Amino acid sequence: MKILVLNCGSSSIKYALYDMDTKTVMTSGGAERVGLDGAFVKVKLANGEKKTVMHDIPEHTEGVKFIFSLLVDPEIGVIKDLKEINAVGHRMVHGGEKFNKSVLLTDEVLKVFEECTDLAPLHNPANLKGVRAVQELMPGLPQVGVFDTAFHQTMPKEAFMYALPYDLYEKYGVRRYGFHGTSHRYVSQRVCEFLGVKPEGKKIITCHIGNGASIAAVKDGKCVDTSMGLTPLEGLIMGTRSGDVDGGALTFIEKKLGLDADGLSDLLNKKSGMLGITGVSSDMREIEKAFEEGNERAKLAFDMYFYRIRKYIGAYAAAMDGCDIIVFTAGVGENQPSLREEVCKKLTYLGVEIDVEKNKNLRGKEALISTPESKVAVCVIPTDEELMIASDTMALL
Amino acid sequence: MKILVLNCGSSSIKYALYDMDTKTVMTSGGAERVGLDGAFVKVKLANGEKKTVMHDIPEHTEGVKFIFSLLVDPEIGVIKDLKEINAVGHRMVHGGEKFNKSVLLTDEVLKVFEECTDLAPLHNPANLKGVRAVQELMPGLPQVGVFDTAFHQTMPKEAFMYALPYDLYEKYGVRRYGFHGTSHRYVSQRVCEFLGVKPEGKKIITCHIGNGASIAAVKDGKCVDTSMGLTPLEGLIMGTRSGDVDGGALTFIEKKLGLDADGLSDLLNKKSGMLGITGVSSDMREIEKAFEEGNERAKLAFDMYFYRIRKYIGAYAAAMDGCDIIVFTAGVGENQPSLREEVCKKLTYLGVEIDVEKNKNLRGKEALISTPESKVAVCVIPTDEELMIASDTMALL
Repeated sequence: MKILVLNCGSSSIKYALYDMDTKTVMTSGGAERVGLDGAFVKVKLANGEKKTVMHDIPEHTEGVKFIFSLLVDPEIGVIKDLKEINAVGHRMVHGGEKFNKSVLLTDEVLKVFEECTDLAPLHNPANLKGVRAVQELMPGLPQVGVFDTAFHQTMPKEAFMYALPYDLYEKYGVRRYGFHGTSHRYVSQRVCEFLGVKPEGKKIITCHIGNGASIAAVKDGKCVDTSMGLTPLEGLIMGTRSGDVDGGALTFIEKKLGLDADGLSDLLNKKSGMLGITGVSSDMREIEKAFEEGNERAKLAFDMYFYRIRKYIGAYAAAMDGCDIIVFTAGVGENQPSLREEVCKKLTYLGVEIDVEKNKNLRGKEALISTPESKVAVCVIPTDEELMIASDTMALL
Repeated sequence: MKILVLNCGSSSIKYALYDMDTKTVMTSGGAERVGLDGAFVKVKLANGEKKTVMHDIPEHTEGVKFIFSLLVDPEIGVIKDLKEINAVGHRMVHGGEKFNKSVLLTDEVLKVFEECTDLAPLHNPANLKGVRAVQELMPGLPQVGVFDTAFHQTMPKEAFMYALPYDLYEKYGVRRYGFHGTSHRYVSQRVCEFLGVKPEGKKIITCHIGNGASIAAVKDGKCVDTSMGLTPLEGLIMGTRSGDVDGGALTFIEKKLGLDADGLSDLLNKKSGMLGITGVSSDMREIEKAFEEGNERAKLAFDMYFYRIRKYIGAYAAAMDGCDIIVFTAGVGENQPSLREEVCKKLTYLGVEIDVEKNKNLRGKEALISTPESKVAVCVIPTDEELMIASDTMALL
């Protein structure tokens, strides 16, 4: 069975074609600058070879059409006929309270999904364009929606409500939804397989630390809290996003700088986080370089970054009254050993003890990095949201 | 030695006259509706008797003058001559980064304090009016400023900085300052005396839970983190204040409701918190009543309220890599046993075990409420900011 996974953003379309018999990626890639000048598609073949193909992509249907043509391309394609594709799985961003699991995308379902647009006005319409493009190009092909928010729908009300006037929840759906749900679900399940334990009875804290970053408390396999909120701004410090800030500071800043809501949103989402503190970059490698050169604000940024993660681990240990497993995943979580060491070394009160040597050289591989004596199992589990989307899609066929 | 403590708000003046030889309050009270119609002063005498005196108070100097007259009043006064007062200690709200301890209020100091007005535009000018009134009425009388923010000035930079563009800190002082510092300082010191231990080597979490509420992490007697931020909005859920909310939700709300910064600030500070969730009241007793009558939103509000406090305790245990002592103080912390029980009963992973029976009937008294087996000493310590202000004032003479 072959499943195509699509992740359509406002100006990008990422894809991966899975052979689900072997659970391997046959080819993957992504269109960039969709709707802009200079659009192109990067293709990664199964043998690791990469190609960039320039192609005009004025809108999503043309993008999906071109990606389809690449899949069957005599030279770089991996299938002979599009009919070999059994289904398409879509990463969908905001399912609001409407979706607590992956679903077959019928017209009825898409209508409900459109009702969530208000909560993610940039992302949801782009997701929908991808679905419509496939409908147009290959009518009747089963399509499945896998929502970033779905895994977090098990949160209890005391965890997902804000202490705001209640009618903001009733009228506009203002509450915590959380994101990266597919990743938190994947690594929280995978870590149990890896350790040979069952999710039931286990208290797991999953740290998805990439350019975007969130953390989740998973009890008995179910999410009970997560750091991102109504939007992906809340919680941890990220590349360009502030994470948590005093609301009083935000209105103070609006007045000082004469910003409206859009201006403030832009400042918090695009000019804050590691970029804002360092003034150097949002890229961890560049910040590490600056740090090594003695840049004090790079040091401060790392201190803040690690401290915030540690505080969230502490908060979620309190939320679950304990913690059995901590998982690090995503770009930074998988590939920056110093982050894992700095976060874990001051969690001795939880009984966390990591194997510093083992951790030091570990990048992008599944591993237990705590010592046998550690009361908490600390693991690195590379995330695989696309495999999760492909698996959900297959399961629904 | 007699010390007058003044706490001047924008429309109120609270006072207490201390006999520092016995550390007792000779009389206390407060002027309300200063600058408004129907102003009055409530007086509490040493014998517990209370009186309300109507009096026109167009501005602070008149208010302080009238309070002075009540102190020497032949009928309800407690001293014969104002010259018996050795000094005045003022509660001052925002000392910014300028003040890390209490100081004698010289003209030079007051000038520096005025530079902090920007950070507390409502409170600081009111504090200053009180100081000026005393200067006018009793020139030469020593006055001391005790700042709400001072105790928190020991926070390390990773705890007090926000992940915002760095120049917002440099230009406008945007950072975490924290409030209720005098209370956190008092109870963190007092609990050590009470338990017969030294602050050095101890990790203490102080929960100041009143109509305003904040929590602090105190290590070796020094504050290392606290939940309130640039303003007293951040952190815990309060009577009418939201505490933590996703910044993305705030700009979403501004746009939905067409609010500007002042409108949003009003919503977050005055219409949110327990009042916003329940729609009933900001008063715990009324919410408890609603809860007992089966009001579901009252139940939700309590669940959220307790859960937020528990998460902060967890975060601060992580911040200090452990916790030896938890202190509850202020109106709710001292007088609502159910809060203490609900917060503590799911902190077993820290080794917290409270004596449920002992806790149940305890209100407003110093007590150890944890069991002898508990790894964390949990205490109730009634706060006494006024005594702290009087003590600081005496120490500076």
